[in-house]
Amino acid sequence: MSLRQRLLLPIIRMSSTSSKVNQPKWYKPSSPTPEETVVLKLYNTLTRSKEEFIPISKNKNVTWYSCGPTVYDSSHMGHARNYVSIDINRRILQDYFGYNINFVQNVTDIDDKIIIRARQNYLFENFMEQHSSISQKLLDYINSALFNYINSNLNDSIKTIPDFQTWVSNLNKEEEKMKNPKFPMHLTASENAIIALSRESIPIEEFFKLVKDVTVPLLDSEFGSTINDPEVFKKLPAYWERQFDRDMSRLNVLPPTLTTRVSEYVPEIITFVEKIIANGYAYPSDDGSVYFDTVKFDASQNHDYAKCQPWNKGQLDLINDAEGSLTNFATGSKKSPNDFALWKNSKPGEPEWVSPWGKGRPGWHIECSVMASDIHGESFDIHSGGIDLAFPHHDNELAQSEAHFDYHQWVNYFLHTGHLHIEGQKMSKSLKNFITIEEALKTYSPRQLRLCFASVQWNNQLDFKESLINEIKSTETTFNNFFMNIRAFNNDYKHMMETSLEGGNISKKLSTMEKDLMSYLFETEKNVHTAFCDNLSTPQVMKHLLDLVTVTNNYITKIGKDWKIEPLMAIIKYITKILGIIGFEIRSDGLGWASTSSSSTATSNSSTEEIIMPYVKVLSKFRDDVRSMSINKTPYQEFLKLTDVLRDVDLLNLNIAIDDRNNQSSLVKFLTDEEKLKLIKFNEEKEIKEKLKMEKKLQQQKLNEEKERLRAEKAKISPKDMFKTNENFSAWDEDGLPTKDKDGNDVTKSMLKKLKKQWEAQRKLYEEYNK
Amino acid sequence: MSLRQRLLLPIIRMSSTSSKVNQPKWYKPSSPTPEETVVLKLYNTLTRSKEEFIPISKNKNVTWYSCGPTVYDSSHMGHARNYVSIDINRRILQDYFGYNINFVQNVTDIDDKIIIRARQNYLFENFMEQHSSISQKLLDYINSALFNYINSNLNDSIKTIPDFQTWVSNLNKEEEKMKNPKFPMHLTASENAIIALSRESIPIEEFFKLVKDVTVPLLDSEFGSTINDPEVFKKLPAYWERQFDRDMSRLNVLPPTLTTRVSEYVPEIITFVEKIIANGYAYPSDDGSVYFDTVKFDASQNHDYAKCQPWNKGQLDLINDAEGSLTNFATGSKKSPNDFALWKNSKPGEPEWVSPWGKGRPGWHIECSVMASDIHGESFDIHSGGIDLAFPHHDNELAQSEAHFDYHQWVNYFLHTGHLHIEGQKMSKSLKNFITIEEALKTYSPRQLRLCFASVQWNNQLDFKESLINEIKSTETTFNNFFMNIRAFNNDYKHMMETSLEGGNISKKLSTMEKDLMSYLFETEKNVHTAFCDNLSTPQVMKHLLDLVTVTNNYITKIGKDWKIEPLMAIIKYITKILGIIGFEIRSDGLGWASTSSSSTATSNSSTEEIIMPYVKVLSKFRDDVRSMSINKTPYQEFLKLTDVLRDVDLLNLNIAIDDRNNQSSLVKFLTDEEKLKLIKFNEEKEIKEKLKMEKKLQQQKLNEEKERLRAEKAKISPKDMFKTNENFSAWDEDGLPTKDKDGNDVTKSMLKKLKKQWEAQRKLYEEYNK
Repeated sequence: MSLRQRLLLPIIRMSSTSSKVNQPKWYKPSSPTPEETVVLKLYNTLTRSKEEFIPISKNKNVTWYSCGPTVYDSSHMGHARNYVSIDINRRILQDYFGYNINFVQNVTDIDDKIIIRARQNYLFENFMEQHSSISQKLLDYINSALFNYINSNLNDSIKTIPDFQTWVSNLNKEEEKMKNPKFPMHLTASENAIIALSRESIPIEEFFKLVKDVTVPLLDSEFGSTINDPEVFKKLPAYWERQFDRDMSRLNVLPPTLTTRVSEYVPEIITFVEKIIANGYAYPSDDGSVYFDTVKFDASQNHDYAKCQPWNKGQLDLINDAEGSLTNFATGSKKSPNDFALWKNSKPGEPEWVSPWGKGRPGWHIECSVMASDIHGESFDIHSGGIDLAFPHHDNELAQSEAHFDYHQWVNYFLHTGHLHIEGQKMSKSLKNFITIEEALKTYSPRQLRLCFASVQWNNQLDFKESLINEIKSTETTFNNFFMNIRAFNNDYKHMMETSLEGGNISKKLSTMEKDLMSYLFETEKNVHTAFCDNLSTPQVMKHLLDLVTVTNNYITKIGKDWKIEPLMAIIKYITKILGIIGFEIRSDGLGWASTSSSSTATSNSSTEEIIMPYVKVLSKFRDDVRSMSINKTPYQEFLKLTDVLRDVDLLNLNIAIDDRNNQSSLVKFLTDEEKLKLIKFNEEKEIKEKLKMEKKLQQQKLNEEKERLRAEKAKISPKDMFKTNENFSAWDEDGLPTKDKDGNDVTKSMLKKLKKQWEAQRKLYEEYNK
Repeated sequence: MSLRQRLLLPIIRMSSTSSKVNQPKWYKPSSPTPEETVVLKLYNTLTRSKEEFIPISKNKNVTWYSCGPTVYDSSHMGHARNYVSIDINRRILQDYFGYNINFVQNVTDIDDKIIIRARQNYLFENFMEQHSSISQKLLDYINSALFNYINSNLNDSIKTIPDFQTWVSNLNKEEEKMKNPKFPMHLTASENAIIALSRESIPIEEFFKLVKDVTVPLLDSEFGSTINDPEVFKKLPAYWERQFDRDMSRLNVLPPTLTTRVSEYVPEIITFVEKIIANGYAYPSDDGSVYFDTVKFDASQNHDYAKCQPWNKGQLDLINDAEGSLTNFATGSKKSPNDFALWKNSKPGEPEWVSPWGKGRPGWHIECSVMASDIHGESFDIHSGGIDLAFPHHDNELAQSEAHFDYHQWVNYFLHTGHLHIEGQKMSKSLKNFITIEEALKTYSPRQLRLCFASVQWNNQLDFKESLINEIKSTETTFNNFFMNIRAFNNDYKHMMETSLEGGNISKKLSTMEKDLMSYLFETEKNVHTAFCDNLSTPQVMKHLLDLVTVTNNYITKIGKDWKIEPLMAIIKYITKILGIIGFEIRSDGLGWASTSSSSTATSNSSTEEIIMPYVKVLSKFRDDVRSMSINKTPYQEFLKLTDVLRDVDLLNLNIAIDDRNNQSSLVKFLTDEEKLKLIKFNEEKEIKEKLKMEKKLQQQKLNEEKERLRAEKAKISPKDMFKTNENFSAWDEDGLPTKDKDGNDVTKSMLKKLKKQWEAQRKLYEEYNK
């Protein structure tokens, strides 16, 4: 519109800020009806049903306490199952549902198992130092330790090794195992010691390894009570806490927001126990311990004992097992067999803290009550742990805290992760059939383990068996291929855009096929939402994602070359996002998960510096070498060898290939693991060929040297003497040329000519040699 | 518990799967009351208030249509403000509130501005090719173009340049600008042409640059109608679409889920218009155009016209401006001046498509109705765009779609981003005071621009002025320092853990100070949630984050060396997460945003390969050099020089410092930009010092050489002759030693002794020299 046109128009515009003009009716979208509303539900042990998740805070804050490790040994697959499953749940609540979670996890670093293990390790180390060779004295001690062990744990009437062996051979081992799950462990320990005692000239290290299990109980019973250095009881848990953290980090488990250690909470525990006593729900006993009064608590109108598993009330095996193996409470010290220790007196050889009830240490359950309450207060949203901890550990925790605060509900949602079995068998430390996380990671990548755990509902039992492993490997391959293909399409698209720079753009318009594909994506998004709301059902989610992959693969097959980039990008990014929420490490470009090669070592948290570091290290090492070789004036061919090693070893290990080219800079290529292996094989074959070539060359060289040696040998002989030793002749002239044959006849003319030729050759050789 | 103990226990355990035992009562947490409930509200232009956001789908899916660019020129700061603000809103809905968004954005590649620009560019290119020098013919043509331009746009009675200049000097320019915002643009164009016409020997490229604006209207009026190659109208928008995509990518704006181009939607547009005609809300005119019947539509009980800005109904300047500058609708073709074109006939020189109403092209508004409906259907959740598009563009869109579907509400939430001003001045293309995104990115980093947009409520006016820029720079520094400090604490913690490997662990127990700090974090989380719910208020969010930084800094100052790592990590990770949600590029370890040096060039999507590549390139180049130098047997000191250049130039440029150490591998350090600059300066100073030292050495060397030369000169003289030329003497002995002084007296004994000494020295020198 030109100026003149504009000026012809009447200027009737009203102030645009006028809010007096009424706007037409706006139709507010209808809120979902309760039937339409999909809400997050969690399986709550406290009701054994899926309950709507309603956090205490109305502003997206969530308080969570997770039962952490007792740090006295390697973490195993059972731990992996619990902590990875809980990590998945935590990530979904945080990254899918948008909650801000204060995730507190404890470290149990005061515990009877730790005390025993620390003391025994310490005593056995001293024992080994005292015995530098396998003396008769040592053998006698082990022998008495063995029978002490057998008599305590297997059969108290056996006195000799042959008796033991006869007894063992008549046993029904399966039956014994049913009666006592620790039977196989005791049997193995005894048999190991017998092997050590029977073998001639066994290396002492091996001997100690085999006898340790039977020896430490005797050592401990004899000298355990003499240990009073607190450092003995600190070093072991500190070591295993770090190992646990390392294992978790390798499994890509998020670290807790806050970590609480029992050893840092003893004063608070004492105060907490005092309050429970004051509230009337606990009593000190004569032996210096304090017990929780389950009967009085359960009888109180406001309280219930054993909220998680009330049917286990009175299960003395479970109750006593939880009291710890160092506890020998005097008869009558507990008012009821259901009662449990809040505070335990410490005997000599056990760590101790001063308390109103004498020197002692906290009971097992009290720590969690105190530490969770210290951070979260009298009530919080979620408590999680393995299902085997539900009774009595968690039920005691609930009772203690509710007794302390005199409050009706300390925990709103109790999440218990299901058991882990291995090939249908229960896994437990006492059975010694456990796989440590470290061992598992030698066979499976962190991603495969997480896939495994995500494929089973977190609160169900998981059987870690071959068919499951094959299934998750196939899932992994399906995703891998999908991501690889879509990335290739994306690169193709970019390439087309670059090469068509001067022309128009590539069509982005959706046909019915792409619209159907997008609809399938939206359906998947809805289904995933519903599945996450349904008790964080990762098995359902994984299935929906795999279906989306299948549908997309079908689209790609059908559409041929006319595929559109945008729906493919929307799908790969959505799948990657959900996998990232479940805790798989994903690529920074959002196009699939991180490559396997890196996922097992680097974490998704690795910063750019961590990514770069290996390359810079290779570079600086190479530079260092070049410097020192230059300073030392090393021959030039050594430099070339160095550049070859850099290419064929260091860079190849980093998945980089360097192609040397004439009169051009070398070409850098990034390799997949497959290509790398191919190239390594090729280089090995090349090396073998070169070795063979070199060997052949060496052989030839040896041959030549031998020839030369013979020639030199020959050259030492003067032509004058050369025929003198020849028995065919009997007389020679002054030059040494034969004149008569062995029969005294004159040498023939033709013969002489021949000999003279030989003589002449020898003369040349001789002269040459003497020069 | 031993086996014997176990066997003594009664086996009374019930089946653990027994669900018949009733669990104690569980108290369901109370759902928030309506007063407690914080819900997301969005400012909706359709009601001019903040409305609770209720998506149509009940499963977290959201449908969104964003008004995309008309691609005929560079994108400017106004675009940046709209697209970055919308990107922030989209990311918050997606990454904070967890919605799955199908975000559709159009590209307007058929438009009068594009047609004119494409045609004029094409004609002017041809024009320049025709004139290889500034001929009189060319000058005459430009002269007539100039007066054509002046008479059309400024004053139609001016005939000469002096008249024009007199007229201009008597003008009140501010007054003219008020009357016509395009006045300054026309004045500049005319004055540029006058400069070109008056300057002697002006380079032809410059000449063409200065006269282009006044020339193209004449060229277009003369030859515009002859352009009929469709490629002319495709190339220009394709080029600018890519430029737009590149600008958005540099601003870290997420690409749309789906992109729709008008040029790919013409058949659907025709069908859509036919349906509106069939529904009785549009009519074809005699000139081959189709118009929307605003009066009939507004009168219909089910419909309202101008839902966004009803007070602008009848604003002919806005209405006609939106019809496009190539539209010259015949009087009477529109039933009402409010009516607008759905389909426009095409005149010669305009791109055209066959339709039931003759050859023509779509009107401006219809495209969005058709494309949004094609993907989202008869109703969708969110439509966004700049506030200047509200009337008539968006109001017409709404009318068209609601007329087509005969549906009461096509869009539920209309989000309009506020205006952008520059130093208090309105920015518009016609005023030519706009800053392109490319220009802005030369002065400000993408992060600074985003900080700027996030610091103002998205639907408010934003004044891009110096005080705002200073404010965001200070904010940036505050965050930078905070992230750097906390990362240093983290490294410190890791280092302490490494060095205390054998001892215990570092305490993680919270004191009151850390508990207060954690409480502040939780409060911040709540406040951020409330702020996001309050119309996605990023200014409030940024304030809460900055307050958290302040409180944390205070904690660090107060606590001294006893800081605890976990609260610091929780805080840095939370702040980083929220900044990431707002669209700032963040570090992969979650400890702060990405460093500035990378944020302006690399995108967060850069793959590991892209990160590694520069380092590998440096390495391969170094290796190439070592190889060729070894092959050419270059002197060893050259290798050392090469390693120095690698250290001081190549690696330093990559922010890596290498410290060479004796008998140890070199130490690799990652530098910040600041440290890098420091080191570069240090190296330069070192170089200068070495240069000075070298110069001094050279000087000394020269001095020594001169001394040596003099000595050599002296050495040529035989001792016998050395005193002969001395005027103090008159007689000499055979060795040349003086016997008489110049007065004929005997040389004194003491003098002779002195002379003999000199003679002896010269003799030595002379002999040495002659040897």
